[in-house]
Amino acid sequence: MTEKTQNAMWGGRFASGPDAIMEAINASIGFDRRLYAQDIQGSRAHAAMLAAQGIISDTDAEAIREGLLTVLSEIEAGKFAFSTALEDIHMNVEARLKELIGEPAGRLHTARSRNDQVATDFRLWVRDQIDAAISGLVALQRALLDQAEAGADWVMPGFTHLQTAQPVTWGHHMMAYVEMFGRDVGRFRDARARMNECPLGAAALAGTSFPIDRRMTAGELGFDRPMANSLDAVSDRDFALEFLAAASICAMHLSRLAEELVIWSSAQFRFVTLSDRFSTGSSIMPQKKNPDAAELIRAKIGRIFGANVALMMVMKGLPLAYSKDMQEDKEQVFDAADNLMLALAAMEGMVRDMTANRENLERAAAAGFSTATDLADWLVRALGLPFREAHHVTGRLVAMAEARGCDLPDLSLEDMRSVHPGITQDVYDVLGVHNSVASRQSYGGTAPDQVRARIAEWRERLE
Amino acid sequence: MTEKTQNAMWGGRFASGPDAIMEAINASIGFDRRLYAQDIQGSRAHAAMLAAQGIISDTDAEAIREGLLTVLSEIEAGKFAFSTALEDIHMNVEARLKELIGEPAGRLHTARSRNDQVATDFRLWVRDQIDAAISGLVALQRALLDQAEAGADWVMPGFTHLQTAQPVTWGHHMMAYVEMFGRDVGRFRDARARMNECPLGAAALAGTSFPIDRRMTAGELGFDRPMANSLDAVSDRDFALEFLAAASICAMHLSRLAEELVIWSSAQFRFVTLSDRFSTGSSIMPQKKNPDAAELIRAKIGRIFGANVALMMVMKGLPLAYSKDMQEDKEQVFDAADNLMLALAAMEGMVRDMTANRENLERAAAAGFSTATDLADWLVRALGLPFREAHHVTGRLVAMAEARGCDLPDLSLEDMRSVHPGITQDVYDVLGVHNSVASRQSYGGTAPDQVRARIAEWRERLE
Amino acid sequence: MTEKTQNAMWGGRFASGPDAIMEAINASIGFDRRLYAQDIQGSRAHAAMLAAQGIISDTDAEAIREGLLTVLSEIEAGKFAFSTALEDIHMNVEARLKELIGEPAGRLHTARSRNDQVATDFRLWVRDQIDAAISGLVALQRALLDQAEAGADWVMPGFTHLQTAQPVTWGHHMMAYVEMFGRDVGRFRDARARMNECPLGAAALAGTSFPIDRRMTAGELGFDRPMANSLDAVSDRDFALEFLAAASICAMHLSRLAEELVIWSSAQFRFVTLSDRFSTGSSIMPQKKNPDAAELIRAKIGRIFGANVALMMVMKGLPLAYSKDMQEDKEQVFDAADNLMLALAAMEGMVRDMTANRENLERAAAAGFSTATDLADWLVRALGLPFREAHHVTGRLVAMAEARGCDLPDLSLEDMRSVHPGITQDVYDVLGVHNSVASRQSYGGTAPDQVRARIAEWRERLE
Amino acid sequence: MTEKTQNAMWGGRFASGPDAIMEAINASIGFDRRLYAQDIQGSRAHAAMLAAQGIISDTDAEAIREGLLTVLSEIEAGKFAFSTALEDIHMNVEARLKELIGEPAGRLHTARSRNDQVATDFRLWVRDQIDAAISGLVALQRALLDQAEAGADWVMPGFTHLQTAQPVTWGHHMMAYVEMFGRDVGRFRDARARMNECPLGAAALAGTSFPIDRRMTAGELGFDRPMANSLDAVSDRDFALEFLAAASICAMHLSRLAEELVIWSSAQFRFVTLSDRFSTGSSIMPQKKNPDAAELIRAKIGRIFGANVALMMVMKGLPLAYSKDMQEDKEQVFDAADNLMLALAAMEGMVRDMTANRENLERAAAAGFSTATDLADWLVRALGLPFREAHHVTGRLVAMAEARGCDLPDLSLEDMRSVHPGITQDVYDVLGVHNSVASRQSYGGTAPDQVRARIAEWRERLE
Repeated sequence: MTEKTQNAMWGGRFASGPDAIMEAINASIGFDRRLYAQDIQGSRAHAAMLAAQGIISDTDAEAIREGLLTVLSEIEAGKFAFSTALEDIHMNVEARLKELIGEPAGRLHTARSRNDQVATDFRLWVRDQIDAAISGLVALQRALLDQAEAGADWVMPGFTHLQTAQPVTWGHHMMAYVEMFGRDVGRFRDARARMNECPLGAAALAGTSFPIDRRMTAGELGFDRPMANSLDAVSDRDFALEFLAAASICAMHLSRLAEELVIWSSAQFRFVTLSDRFSTGSSIMPQKKNPDAAELIRAKIGRIFGANVALMMVMKGLPLAYSKDMQEDKEQVFDAADNLMLALAAMEGMVRDMTANRENLERAAAAGFSTATDLADWLVRALGLPFREAHHVTGRLVAMAEARGCDLPDLSLEDMRSVHPGITQDVYDVLGVHNSVASRQSYGGTAPDQVRARIAEWRERLE
Repeated sequence: MTEKTQNAMWGGRFASGPDAIMEAINASIGFDRRLYAQDIQGSRAHAAMLAAQGIISDTDAEAIREGLLTVLSEIEAGKFAFSTALEDIHMNVEARLKELIGEPAGRLHTARSRNDQVATDFRLWVRDQIDAAISGLVALQRALLDQAEAGADWVMPGFTHLQTAQPVTWGHHMMAYVEMFGRDVGRFRDARARMNECPLGAAALAGTSFPIDRRMTAGELGFDRPMANSLDAVSDRDFALEFLAAASICAMHLSRLAEELVIWSSAQFRFVTLSDRFSTGSSIMPQKKNPDAAELIRAKIGRIFGANVALMMVMKGLPLAYSKDMQEDKEQVFDAADNLMLALAAMEGMVRDMTANRENLERAAAAGFSTATDLADWLVRALGLPFREAHHVTGRLVAMAEARGCDLPDLSLEDMRSVHPGITQDVYDVLGVHNSVASRQSYGGTAPDQVRARIAEWRERLE
Repeated sequence: MTEKTQNAMWGGRFASGPDAIMEAINASIGFDRRLYAQDIQGSRAHAAMLAAQGIISDTDAEAIREGLLTVLSEIEAGKFAFSTALEDIHMNVEARLKELIGEPAGRLHTARSRNDQVATDFRLWVRDQIDAAISGLVALQRALLDQAEAGADWVMPGFTHLQTAQPVTWGHHMMAYVEMFGRDVGRFRDARARMNECPLGAAALAGTSFPIDRRMTAGELGFDRPMANSLDAVSDRDFALEFLAAASICAMHLSRLAEELVIWSSAQFRFVTLSDRFSTGSSIMPQKKNPDAAELIRAKIGRIFGANVALMMVMKGLPLAYSKDMQEDKEQVFDAADNLMLALAAMEGMVRDMTANRENLERAAAAGFSTATDLADWLVRALGLPFREAHHVTGRLVAMAEARGCDLPDLSLEDMRSVHPGITQDVYDVLGVHNSVASRQSYGGTAPDQVRARIAEWRERLE
Repeated sequence: MTEKTQNAMWGGRFASGPDAIMEAINASIGFDRRLYAQDIQGSRAHAAMLAAQGIISDTDAEAIREGLLTVLSEIEAGKFAFSTALEDIHMNVEARLKELIGEPAGRLHTARSRNDQVATDFRLWVRDQIDAAISGLVALQRALLDQAEAGADWVMPGFTHLQTAQPVTWGHHMMAYVEMFGRDVGRFRDARARMNECPLGAAALAGTSFPIDRRMTAGELGFDRPMANSLDAVSDRDFALEFLAAASICAMHLSRLAEELVIWSSAQFRFVTLSDRFSTGSSIMPQKKNPDAAELIRAKIGRIFGANVALMMVMKGLPLAYSKDMQEDKEQVFDAADNLMLALAAMEGMVRDMTANRENLERAAAAGFSTATDLADWLVRALGLPFREAHHVTGRLVAMAEARGCDLPDLSLEDMRSVHPGITQDVYDVLGVHNSVASRQSYGGTAPDQVRARIAEWRERLE
């Protein structure tokens, strides 16, 4: 950047230019160039409005419009020379516009400031990411629904504390994640609705004396309305923080599913087989087939929530209106968004490709006295025992079976009656895992019918 | 805890009881006793439903209902002896119920588990906190609206980088916070709508074989519907995390306002005077009047967002369904909620009590060439200069004024014309701070008319 | 609090007292009472120094000393009435001292302030916690060493990506944690050395004009030296943050071991059996034996690192010297310290009590072609193949074995030679898991001799 | 990457290659190429050791050595073609080495694995960053020492709660930061000593059966010793976390100083003037001179501590030994290190360039009854009043002065005696700010002599 460009930008105020360290810490073009399309879109809307309001001439507006389209195509063709000395995407675009169209370029910045400009650009970008996250989530939900449908009645262990608790179905387990990711979609939708207001026209912070039409620019950019307070418009980063908060909870859900895939892929579990496409080998152990993608997804919560922490710390205690601290917002959101989209896509691929090992699931479900609760419930229903007493009786029967190294159905009726004389032959009907899951017909329960009903509802909702 | 109680609770499984360390790390009654009202409310709804469905007798249901009301009144009267050996609020209540009504108490736990019970209790508690947060926010908004109304046309410096940028109005600045806290209300409302589903009936994790009516209990407890997946119902803590995320962003807003109050209360600014009620003295410096409340509010973001981090870390990578890790959810949310409510109340009190020092605000607004932008805009409007050129001319005039130690209106017309010959006498009309703010009539701008219009809209919205 | 007490404390400055909200947000006695012993210890050292320097009389000093001992015994006997109106532990102690000894109590606060007083109290408390953490860590290391010694040559799978990679020994795996916890001890020791400087005598922030002897009080309180800058002395909370950072990394190590215990306790792994003392049952599933303690320890990183985040956010951007924000330091550190000590004690107990299931470990170690690397290394050593080629040959042999459903040693020599003709009968010597671990004699490797050497070194170090 | 290269790397195991998503999430070459120098350094040490131990021939070792130097020069000249298909820096270097020297390249990976290789590379990189951080801190301390020396006796307000508390000296305030940054140096030094152990030779996780000499490679790479447990060696990331923890506390210190510079640069304070080099202008307000560098430094704590959070979350609950989650370590540390170095350099430059406005500082110091404590102390010393009574008397005198709109020295002796009859003419000696600071001769106090003594000590220490 020549001293002259420097002066053109900051006015005649400074005797000396910033040195190398200052340029390194201050310039944002290294990352905010990513906002080029949004910046140009915002400028086009602004110029059109200025002309409509008679603030600039139609001729100037037309020149600006054409010039901006040229800049856009130059950037997209990779032919644009970004300049660090010009600090940011806004000045880079404007400087090139001036080279292209001359004086009218200088009229584009009328009635706006970089403060409302960057707020607008960044909102547009985040809004796109919200839409992308929703698409990624819905695709993942569909992959889970397919898995759920295929295995709606496959029995597997339902775990608490990673101990077998009760049998559930594969479909039911998959559908738990459909619910979680459904809430994530809801959070992103709410965030989108709340952030869909336009900062443009707030100018530096106080609004402007030019007779602008903020509703026009807002509408042109797809916003529901202009923001109602110009100070707030330039100092607010809630939209970025709410995106990061929603992304973090979503990443947490992904980390849970990823953890399950890692555990289920172990030689000890073998509940699922991941596809070769989403596994890798080892440079020293040729036989290894590692669930790398699952592990990387599990880890993504770190950087996504780390970005949330970072931006919360930046915003903590900042007085109004704009402070330069806020320039630290973009890299965090860029990185979090990129990694969320990647994690969603990788998880969708993994879920689509994976094979549940039905026999292993069922064998595991049957072990560990997993129908003890069914036995206790039977004692309540059939013999009218209070729940707590039924629980106690069941505990003694389990202890008996454990001592003999057998399972509950292997105890003889005589054995059972030695613990509680009221027990009858009927008890054996509730002890198999298929009986168990079929019996859990309460709304939202694991019975295959319930699972299929939920799948149908979600299919309809995702139409 | 006697061995007998122990056995009654966990069944006959364990040869030895947990020792002191285990009890210390495992028992939750020290904090979850706070959920007593929700626990009893949930149990009453559950018992009523069990009776309605014929799962327990009406006589038992009546005994349970009466017994629970007795337990409730004992706890509220401070006459209840909580037992650590009974681990948690659920077992404490049930054990006392058994003492009061005998055998029917043992039927209450039919078709449920502590997993769905605690999820229900905690949701009810968090829902109440969301309502409390909304009330606190609205009260704070009202205090800000009153300040805004009183000073809708008082001029103060609008800052960027804590440097005077342009004059704004006190009312405008207050209204920026009304917008922020309005978004907080929106986030809490969305969180409430999303979390208002009932886990009860999910039982341990798989649902139940008893013919329960989950819609009935959901309705009785004010939930919109039962949760649709029983595994999700007992393993989900999104409602707590979304509450913490909303509370954290709200705390960030509070920290910004608090920072401003601290700075504005300094001897150097003297923009506001805080009331004695919200200030404190010093043990060694008798003349000090410290903005302690503002500093403490500024700090609250630490523990509130710290709680968010804590629970996110806990949930990261947990396989389904319930893991004991999740017991760490409550203390974090309790502490965050308590401190959020306290901070909101203290901020409302401080805002209500504080006095804006109108003269100091106006004097500060006029300093620092704060109407330079108005001058630049005038050059664009009146002389048709392109914005960038107008900016440059203004910069030279500011440099001239600075060199002479005077303000912009103190420059003679001749001086002005030496920089740009087109400048006329009219320029002096835009250089005063009152002219400046009055001119910013764009929607959401700082002009008193705009501010009053926004106040009126918010008053109506908060009716 | 009466108006009179109020006045006595803050001087005659305030017309009105703080109201209920202010008291709630401002008072710290609810938590800082925990510093009572440190506060009295500090006051005793201060009074002795004041007398030694002739700033107060010996008689007064003696009265103060006796009075403070009385206060101490009252608090320890539970007979002390803490007052919220007196705000904090310092004023509570001093007010009671005044009741006990009258006027001399008023001389105790000469040449100090609550700012340096609380900094001193809190440092003393944190220093004790560091010592406690080191003790807890060493006890845990001893428990791990005992496990390592018992199973120095027991073979188990070494995992990468939770996939069997190579056989290792139980002792080697236990010793990995001894190393980690050893680094934790180092971090706590370094933190202790760095924080062991005394703030007392910094007074409010500027030092004092009284001829105090800061080296004397520092020495009496076990500090290495007085802090060298009085502003820093009252505004520094590095000691708390460094404690939290060390505690957080330690909690991360605990979370890793806890995760392994949870996985190893699953029915699918059965690598270890936890004792009944550190497991719990289920209210609905009588057969469950849940690794609750391990899960709770795994979760503790949340609140410990959450506290770290909280205090970092509080301190971010605070100007010097003391700000009331810093009052938020104590609860975070108290909670983190309590939970760290609890987690260390529970982990030590769990490790001591647990039983490694040697047969299961060995069986798992032998599965999954875990000696493939040994085969590759043999090809390099015996046949002089470049490593990458040896790797490739091994991969083909594994694929062959996998296709036949057998293990590597089950392939015939002819089979092997069909992949690489140079292979000889000797290859079978390296394919057993015991051969494998015995061969890894590199320093720090898993060979039992290496493991025993490391155990011996650690035993000596922990003497 | 061709299928063939693929096969060469992972052996013959996989039927299909990873698709685009997998490559995107899995490949690390996009960032770990930054470790090229460390990777080559490590490989050279490893090759030299293999030859010294007779594991490879001297000819091969020589070829490897030469080849690696060629690769190094190619990378440094920007002529190296990095390949994403080759995943990481290790495979990129090795593949090129093979092109250059053929078969011997395949022998380099003998007795090591990517697990110990990356742990070694990354440690070397972090160690360099620790050294860089220490250099940056010492340079910043020197800049602060120069400021302190120049203004050792300039009086300024000492603040608590951003309210004037007592006069201090500019030098004293600067020296507070010298102490803070001195502790940062200490933390980095301790971290360096603790992490300076070599993982190389741990191989995949179990050590190796080749007769390697780990002490030789450790020594060659400047490590104090090899790590003592091979599982720990490949699964440990403490060194990165401790670096991030130290960097975070350092960034917190920077944020505090930055906050002060922002406040001090405001029109209301004007305590300092920042140089043009470290300030910027505004695109719309030509008169602005914004402390952008200070604000950006204030914000850096966000991303540095965010990185700490990110890596802590990644490591939470990971079972041993290596999991792919750990690949997320590098980008976080790279970004944190880059930003810490930049912030240190920018702060050093700002401190060097800034001008303290001595008159403004002194004027502010004298306002606000800042010598009230001196008055109270005089009452104790001269009249023998108990401190609490002296405090009360002072409070009444301050209230009197405040009511009259004058300062303490402006009260007549008669006025003073109306509050306490014992007051004499001597009291006026302690009421000036210069008297006040000169009197605070306690060790570490603000008296210019004390400040100069501390400066001298630090100068010597930094020699």
